[in-house]
Amino acid sequence: MDFFYTNLIYLIPVFGLIGIAVMAVKAAWVVKQDAGDGDMAQLAGYIADGAMAFLRAEWKVLSYFVVIAGLLLAYSGTTVDTSSPVIAISFVVGAFLSAFAGYLGMRIATKANVRTTQAARTSLAQALKVSFTGGTVMGLGVAGLAIIGLGSLFIVFYTIYVKNVAGASVNGEAMAKALDVLAGFSLGAESIALFARVGGGIYTKAADVGADLVGKVEAGIPEDDVRNPATIADNVGDNVGDVAGMGADLFGSYVATMLATMVLGREIVSPDSFGGIAPVLLPMVIAGLGLIFSIVGASFVKINKETDSVQSALNIGNWASIILTAIATFFLVNWMLPAYVFHMKRDELGGGMLKGGSIEFTRGDVFGAIVVGLVVGTLMSMITEYYTAMGKRPVLGIIKQSSTGHATNIIAGLAVGMESTVLPILVLAAGIYGSYHFAGLYGVAIAAAGMMATTAMQLSIDAFGPIADNAGGIAEMSRLPEEVRHRTDNLDAVGNTTAATGKGFAIASAALTSLALFAAFVGVAGIEHIDIYKADVLAGLFVGGMIPFIFSALAISAVGRAAMAMVEEVRRQFREIPGIMEYKAKPEYEKCVAISTKASIREMVAPGLIALITPIIVGFIFGPEVLGGLLAGVTVSGVLMGIFQSNAGGAWDNAKKSFEKGVEINGEMYYKKSEPHKASVTGDTVGDPFKDTSGPSMNILIKLMSIVSLVIAPHLQKDLSHNPRLQREIHTQSMVAPVAKPVSKI
Amino acid sequence: MDFFYTNLIYLIPVFGLIGIAVMAVKAAWVVKQDAGDGDMAQLAGYIADGAMAFLRAEWKVLSYFVVIAGLLLAYSGTTVDTSSPVIAISFVVGAFLSAFAGYLGMRIATKANVRTTQAARTSLAQALKVSFTGGTVMGLGVAGLAIIGLGSLFIVFYTIYVKNVAGASVNGEAMAKALDVLAGFSLGAESIALFARVGGGIYTKAADVGADLVGKVEAGIPEDDVRNPATIADNVGDNVGDVAGMGADLFGSYVATMLATMVLGREIVSPDSFGGIAPVLLPMVIAGLGLIFSIVGASFVKINKETDSVQSALNIGNWASIILTAIATFFLVNWMLPAYVFHMKRDELGGGMLKGGSIEFTRGDVFGAIVVGLVVGTLMSMITEYYTAMGKRPVLGIIKQSSTGHATNIIAGLAVGMESTVLPILVLAAGIYGSYHFAGLYGVAIAAAGMMATTAMQLSIDAFGPIADNAGGIAEMSRLPEEVRHRTDNLDAVGNTTAATGKGFAIASAALTSLALFAAFVGVAGIEHIDIYKADVLAGLFVGGMIPFIFSALAISAVGRAAMAMVEEVRRQFREIPGIMEYKAKPEYEKCVAISTKASIREMVAPGLIALITPIIVGFIFGPEVLGGLLAGVTVSGVLMGIFQSNAGGAWDNAKKSFEKGVEINGEMYYKKSEPHKASVTGDTVGDPFKDTSGPSMNILIKLMSIVSLVIAPHLQKDLSHNPRLQREIHTQSMVAPVAKPVSKI
Repeated sequence: MDFFYTNLIYLIPVFGLIGIAVMAVKAAWVVKQDAGDGDMAQLAGYIADGAMAFLRAEWKVLSYFVVIAGLLLAYSGTTVDTSSPVIAISFVVGAFLSAFAGYLGMRIATKANVRTTQAARTSLAQALKVSFTGGTVMGLGVAGLAIIGLGSLFIVFYTIYVKNVAGASVNGEAMAKALDVLAGFSLGAESIALFARVGGGIYTKAADVGADLVGKVEAGIPEDDVRNPATIADNVGDNVGDVAGMGADLFGSYVATMLATMVLGREIVSPDSFGGIAPVLLPMVIAGLGLIFSIVGASFVKINKETDSVQSALNIGNWASIILTAIATFFLVNWMLPAYVFHMKRDELGGGMLKGGSIEFTRGDVFGAIVVGLVVGTLMSMITEYYTAMGKRPVLGIIKQSSTGHATNIIAGLAVGMESTVLPILVLAAGIYGSYHFAGLYGVAIAAAGMMATTAMQLSIDAFGPIADNAGGIAEMSRLPEEVRHRTDNLDAVGNTTAATGKGFAIASAALTSLALFAAFVGVAGIEHIDIYKADVLAGLFVGGMIPFIFSALAISAVGRAAMAMVEEVRRQFREIPGIMEYKAKPEYEKCVAISTKASIREMVAPGLIALITPIIVGFIFGPEVLGGLLAGVTVSGVLMGIFQSNAGGAWDNAKKSFEKGVEINGEMYYKKSEPHKASVTGDTVGDPFKDTSGPSMNILIKLMSIVSLVIAPHLQKDLSHNPRLQREIHTQSMVAPVAKPVSKI
Repeated sequence: MDFFYTNLIYLIPVFGLIGIAVMAVKAAWVVKQDAGDGDMAQLAGYIADGAMAFLRAEWKVLSYFVVIAGLLLAYSGTTVDTSSPVIAISFVVGAFLSAFAGYLGMRIATKANVRTTQAARTSLAQALKVSFTGGTVMGLGVAGLAIIGLGSLFIVFYTIYVKNVAGASVNGEAMAKALDVLAGFSLGAESIALFARVGGGIYTKAADVGADLVGKVEAGIPEDDVRNPATIADNVGDNVGDVAGMGADLFGSYVATMLATMVLGREIVSPDSFGGIAPVLLPMVIAGLGLIFSIVGASFVKINKETDSVQSALNIGNWASIILTAIATFFLVNWMLPAYVFHMKRDELGGGMLKGGSIEFTRGDVFGAIVVGLVVGTLMSMITEYYTAMGKRPVLGIIKQSSTGHATNIIAGLAVGMESTVLPILVLAAGIYGSYHFAGLYGVAIAAAGMMATTAMQLSIDAFGPIADNAGGIAEMSRLPEEVRHRTDNLDAVGNTTAATGKGFAIASAALTSLALFAAFVGVAGIEHIDIYKADVLAGLFVGGMIPFIFSALAISAVGRAAMAMVEEVRRQFREIPGIMEYKAKPEYEKCVAISTKASIREMVAPGLIALITPIIVGFIFGPEVLGGLLAGVTVSGVLMGIFQSNAGGAWDNAKKSFEKGVEINGEMYYKKSEPHKASVTGDTVGDPFKDTSGPSMNILIKLMSIVSLVIAPHLQKDLSHNPRLQREIHTQSMVAPVAKPVSKI
């Protein structure tokens, strides 16, 4: 163990490399599968081309953004601190890796979809294998690149700022600077996530709503019908929004939780273990173990017979990775941490002396906090499933209220969405309380890190859904035999459930990540309190609470506008291209793809700017404490709006789907095309932007605003935050004896 | 001036008595007007009977509640403080006066409605006079009773606890006790408001939605058609929800702002002015002046010709009362306050010494804060009008998106509602910041008091709306000539605008009131900070933010359920009573009235308990600081959800109304019964519970939870709020020289 003990820091990127190696093998396997022929291959080609067209357009805008933001970061860095230009490099690397992970995932997803369709001609087991392997490529790619990037940059910055500097303390300002610079990596990743998630969300729903409104409602042709000019855009959207968007979202959460835990870990005094940096390394090592056990868990996901349950196979894999990671983490924490550690305040660290007021906790407490994180993530997924699953009370209530028309269906769905915030918030509040109880703010952060440990597995399951959905679409459009479609439908149904639980997990992770970042921000900004009894902080809380509302309004309206443009284009093609309806002429799919692409790129700018610029303005004009109030407001309101919108949308969706099998209301059976079913379609359409655009955007919003605040935190002037005339605080110096000596670097 | 100087405290109830005297004269005048004949009188009788039936049923439940809550208050009082049973008396008086004010207002509203219809046979001027005079009875009754009640009780408690106690300081614990007991009055008033607003909101929308779904949609008969069994319940609902509910809401805000300002005013050291209690008396005197100038302003509300603008007449009266009150307040503040006052922390007051850290401000600053309050109230009304008015961008956007169906209409309305939170929140945040800048937390409270000063006038205008609406309904049901209905329609249209602006004012007042109560709570609880950087306080913030969501969900679902019951009853009557459609048989109106009454009473219990019990549980288990976090979460989220829901509902309503006159979409004209119009009806139906049940309920929720917290504040143990193990605070005693001597009592 001695080798590991000395070189642990250099082993972290190795975990990532293992993930990437396994990913490469799996990707090669997927590409090797039979891609089918004729119509299938052609349609899959359209989808892949559309997806790449979107990525290229997005990257063009993003490259401008990254260059400008990078230059600004570098320039503002030079004005306050000569070493800060380095943060720009960190930022660019983060942005590049996040975009690259999205590219890999989407590339393989657009290959796996048609290969899944082809495999479904053979057996369900084979179709699951292809689609899930496609998903694992995304999962392993995201996690692997994140660990390689963060781990390598940390080695570089640690070497430059701490190890090679005489007299630098691993708990002191030198390490703080290394981590401040590292924060740029997370900022880069989350900025890409914003555009991927919001842009992707607008793309997919503009195409979906537009395709449905003309195709299903006006022309009366089925969903995924090859005659609908918007159908390719719709299928591209699944990849753009659900694969690349979700991937970027979780890439951001994964990196940010590690970073926040590292920032808080610097304040943990852990003498004689790994040169005192064990609390900083811990979150990255946990993530590394989680990645390895995700690979193990993924190998359990398989079925043998047509009648085996796909859902059970996924559950077994998921649980295996979680439980194995938890067990491994127990030993890891015991190996890495001393029996007792202390938490110090940032101000107390620089001078080499520890003041009083520190809290002390054991390594067992740290493990306890990690378990809290795992439990919170699991419960959040379960609650989300309850509120959006077919056959449960919430969805049944919406079905019943569909019988009196469109309006009561909408009212029921909105009420379900609002009600569904109760349990998640109680779980989250208990999670905050519990993890803090175990290990203070470090506990809150490490809980988030624990929850995110198996991100590779979660994302594999998430990405499986849209691949299966696409596979079904291709089967439908190519008019393949009934049994093939039956198999892809089976996979797609499971994919709908995993989409719902995945959203619950994504919101929970965003919430805990934001809290960890929030705690890190307060430490880095060097403030003692965020006191909402102060009027300006309270005003910040109000303004922060409002931001998710305007962000949602912008996202929803963007979908509305883009969908109207799509509707007009589809109507135009039906009118001007004769023979579409008779399969004699091909619709101009690329025109619809272009509309979605253009709209999503254009419409993501305004919400993006709000998220990026608000913390900067508030922080520099009103100071860090008001900015803290703003962040708290954004986080609380964003989590609530995220849960409300995602769950309302999910419940409406499944209420509508229930009619396809037939539902009983007051003793009568209703099916597709009945009046209650039409009402349920209205709810589903309202729910589309809720659950796939504005709802999930809340994750990015709260994380991005927190990470921007963390990055600017060292540059904010504390005394700006209050009008000195109104200053009621009495600042006194406390004089308490030091409780521990600072520890030296490796 | 010497007499006034010495006896100011005894003059406060006199303002209230003047208001009640004028009210009596106006009420007598309304009753004296011609009530019409035949059908009209009979229908008005049904409405009045239905309204009284609801009040009786509500009072029955409330009397149990008041007795039980009063006994609990008295009992818990005795366990901690021998004088506290008195708070129960205060509570019962507050509850009684609030209920009595509601009774007076509703009684006269149900007489003014039919008399307005009759007056409309003569002229628009006369119809306005009758309906607006009816409204002023409500306005003056509410304001007058509030001032009499609060002023008299304050005289009593001041005499018992402060004046007659040797050595008691007006800035010390004696005064604190007097004000703690007085808080019971506000609690009583706000509890009644809860039941009136939530119960009334459920009542009116159950009837409205139920009547529309069967009458308009299924049977194809117009609104307010005498053949619809639910039409009487619908008209009763206007009185129950919009008159009694709004009245109780504003009664509560009015009392609570005065109380909160008084509690904070005790901490203001104002030597040698009115025995040092000028800052405590000031809010009541401002309210008294506002009442007098509301009477003056009301006298300006008249028109002479048929073509005169009713809206202008109301605006002139409103502006007159606001400007006159502002001018009078300027002189009042200069007369009552010394040039400089100091703000002390509560802990510093008891011992007779002032510690440092106090803030100092001038009487000019106090006036500045009041002006901020007036500006906030005015801006909030204007913004609300913009977002809900016909012909403006938000409503036009909804109209346009109605052309692509129900779903896009709903999406557009939701987006408008969310977007409409931006400006009000910025105004509110600026108001908090500005009023605090002028005069600290006392400034925030006195800003609210300034805004509420002309409550009598605001409420007169608010109550005019439903009276005019009822008058129109009676004209419709009695099938009076076209010109009569044209006049009542004119009044009704203005009433719709005043309803929207009134809601903006009510939300703004609830927000500022809650903030004032929040500040008072922190002072009374004796905590120094509410630090959301502490994990348990942050957890409280999350849970608090969630409560408006579950409260709204309960309110919306309640309307949904009650409306379904109403639908079934109306269908039953159409089926089982032959001849209704041919005007040959009378529907059983009273059955529908009973359904709404029963449902509203039953369904208001669950949300009511949440509002009442949550602060008690959180406060006693987790301590005052966590409760403070909870309150901040409730207030921020409640204000946002209130604005979102009220404005979305208002905008949908006017989008639908626009179709009645005809609207142009993409160059084509659309009218009633067109497809876009049907989509707009869906939006309006969804908006009904939003704007009249759950939206306005947010006002009561945030105020009631704050007032409950204020009442229990003296009994909460400070040290409960944090796990001592995790206590990172270092409490040090500061030693700063006293800045002012305490002042003696009168």
